[in-house]
Amino acid sequence: MMVEGRDLRAVWWEGDEADGAVHMIDQRLLPHRLETVVAQSVDEVAHHIRDMTVRGAPTIGATAAYGMVLGREDPVAAAAILAASRPTAQDLFTALEWMKTAPTLARAAAYVDDLVARCRLIGTHGARLFEEVAGGRDTVRALTHCHAGALATVDHGTALAPIHALMALGGRVRPFVWVDETRPRVQGAITAWELRAAGVPHRVLVDNAAPSLMARGEVDLVVVGADRIAANGDVVNKIGTYGKALAAAAHGVPFYVAAPVSTFDFSLPTGAAVPIEERPVAEVLEWAGHRVYGSGTEAVNPAFDVTPSALVTGYITEFGILGRDRLGMVRAGQGMPLPPAV
Amino acid sequence: MMVEGRDLRAVWWEGDEADGAVHMIDQRLLPHRLETVVAQSVDEVAHHIRDMTVRGAPTIGATAAYGMVLGREDPVAAAAILAASRPTAQDLFTALEWMKTAPTLARAAAYVDDLVARCRLIGTHGARLFEEVAGGRDTVRALTHCHAGALATVDHGTALAPIHALMALGGRVRPFVWVDETRPRVQGAITAWELRAAGVPHRVLVDNAAPSLMARGEVDLVVVGADRIAANGDVVNKIGTYGKALAAAAHGVPFYVAAPVSTFDFSLPTGAAVPIEERPVAEVLEWAGHRVYGSGTEAVNPAFDVTPSALVTGYITEFGILGRDRLGMVRAGQGMPLPPAV
Repeated sequence: MMVEGRDLRAVWWEGDEADGAVHMIDQRLLPHRLETVVAQSVDEVAHHIRDMTVRGAPTIGATAAYGMVLGREDPVAAAAILAASRPTAQDLFTALEWMKTAPTLARAAAYVDDLVARCRLIGTHGARLFEEVAGGRDTVRALTHCHAGALATVDHGTALAPIHALMALGGRVRPFVWVDETRPRVQGAITAWELRAAGVPHRVLVDNAAPSLMARGEVDLVVVGADRIAANGDVVNKIGTYGKALAAAAHGVPFYVAAPVSTFDFSLPTGAAVPIEERPVAEVLEWAGHRVYGSGTEAVNPAFDVTPSALVTGYITEFGILGRDRLGMVRAGQGMPLPPAV
Repeated sequence: MMVEGRDLRAVWWEGDEADGAVHMIDQRLLPHRLETVVAQSVDEVAHHIRDMTVRGAPTIGATAAYGMVLGREDPVAAAAILAASRPTAQDLFTALEWMKTAPTLARAAAYVDDLVARCRLIGTHGARLFEEVAGGRDTVRALTHCHAGALATVDHGTALAPIHALMALGGRVRPFVWVDETRPRVQGAITAWELRAAGVPHRVLVDNAAPSLMARGEVDLVVVGADRIAANGDVVNKIGTYGKALAAAAHGVPFYVAAPVSTFDFSLPTGAAVPIEERPVAEVLEWAGHRVYGSGTEAVNPAFDVTPSALVTGYITEFGILGRDRLGMVRAGQGMPLPPAV
C-alpha cells in the first residue's frame, strides 16, 4: 500500500536470515501516528500479536511465519509460543504448520508473497462482483466491519481488496464505504485511515446504526473478512459481524465474506467449535485509559462471533466468488503454490 | 430513586411558581459525579434538553412541563422554543400540549406525579411478566439498550421499572441485567450507575456482542424504553434498538417495549414518519474530547431507529402487558388522570 509516498506492508523482514528481524507497522498507534516496531525474538513477536500491534488473521499468520525464522533453532518451542498468542485466527495455525518443517527465511517470504498474491486475486474477483452489484449505478456502497484491509493482510486486504482494485481500475463504478466503528477496539479508525490514504470516499458510523442504514436502502452490500471459516462455511469474525449479517438478511442486502485459503479450517465441521477469545474487560470499561463505569460494574468482552453460513451470500476467494456449496474448491486448493488465476 | 442516602428524581421544581426554578441531575456527568444544575428560563431548559443534561423521553417531557411554568407569561413562545429542542421524543409534545392551556406549577406537578405513578405501574406489571419469563428459574436475565431507568422517567423507569419492582418485591426471582454500552453516547454507563445504586447484578457489553449472547442462550428477554410509538406499534428508540430486535427474533428471545401513554403518538400510522434526529458527528468521531479519526473522515450519527411492531412481543404499559393488537386500550386511556390499576 502507498502511504505518505512509501510503499508499505503491514509486516516485513529486514536483514539476512541470520541477523535479521521482523518489522511491523504499529497498528495500535493508527490513525494518529505511523510508526514501526521491531521484534527480535519469538517472545517479542508473540507479544506484538497478543497486544494487537499487528492484527487481522492473514497479517497474524505472516507475522508468525517470520517469527518462526527467529525461532528456527527450536521450531517446536517457537511454534508453541506463537500458537498461544491468540486463539481464533486460523491463519496463525496455517502459517505455523507451513513453517514447522523448514523455518527458513525463504519459506517465510514465500508464504507472505503468496498471501499477498492471493489477496490481489481476491481484489480482482471482488471488483467484478462489486461492479455487478452496482448494476447501472456509478457508485457501489459497501458496508464493512472491523478492518480487513491491507494492514490486516500484509497488503491489498480481503474485504477492502475489491475496493482497492476498483480504485486501481478507475472504471465507471466507484466505491463508497460505510465504516463500522467496531467497538471495542475501534478498528474502524484503521479502516478509515487506509481508505483516506487510498482516496476512497467513506463515512464512519457507530455499530448500532448499520441496521437502520440498511432499512433506509443506503447499503448495496456488506463485505467483511474472517478470522476462521469452518468446513460448512460458518464464519468466525470480529464481534458484531453476526448482527450485521442478520440485518443484511432482513433487508435482502448481499453479505460477502472475503478470505484466502489460509483462513479456512476444514477440520471443523461448523463454527460452533471455534475457540472464541475473551479479551480484557478494560477494552469495554475504559475509554482512552479512563474508566467510564463505577467500580461495581463488570463486563464481558468476547472478541469474535459466529455467522452461520446460511447468512453468507458468497465467499470472495482467490478462486473466485463461491457459494457455500462450492467450498470444496477451496479445500482442494489448500497448500502452496498459488493456484492459477480463474 | 435512593442514591447515596437521598431520595432523588431526575428533574424537579424548587420554590414557588413565581420565583422557583427547574432543578435536574446533570446526566452528562454520570457516573463520575452526581451534580445538579438549575434552569431559570425557557432557553436554559431547552439548552439542557438539547445538550442531554436530561435525557429519556419521559424525563424530557417532565422537564418541558416545568419549563412551561418558567415561560407561563408567553406560553405559545415557550412551547415553540421547547418543541425545537429535540425532535423525536413524543413525551415532549405530549407535555407541551398538556401545559399550553394552563402553564401553572400545579398542572406541571400533576403531569410529573402522574408520570411517576404510571412508571410505578409499569414496574408492577413488568415484574409479574419477568417472573413468568423466568419460568422455574431463580434469575431472569434481561438485556437492555440505552438508559430507560429512573433518570429517564423522573423516577422508577420504563425498561428498568420491572427490575426495580422485582428488587422491591424481594421474591424468589432475582433480576440480572445485560447492559448494552449504547454508542455513541454510552448511556449504558448511566444504566450501570443506576443498577449499582439499586444493588442489581449486571454486566456491560459492547453493542456488537448482544447477538452472540442471544445465540449462546444467555438472554431471557430484551426490554427497552421508547421515544415514540406509532399507532401500529412501530417503536422509535435509541439507535441500535432495531438490531437487537432482529437478533432477538432470530433466537426466539422475547422483545418487550416499556412505555407510558405519553410516549404513544396515535397521529402517526407507522414509525416511518417519525423525524429521526441527526446529532453532531463529534459524538462518533471523538472519544473523551480527542478526535480518533483523521481530518478526511466524516460520519453519520442518527440518534434513533425504527423497530417494526412485528418484532415486538409486547408493550409493558400502565394498563398491563399489551400485544400490538390491543394498543387501542392505550389510545382510549390517553389524557389525565391516571387510569385505575388493572
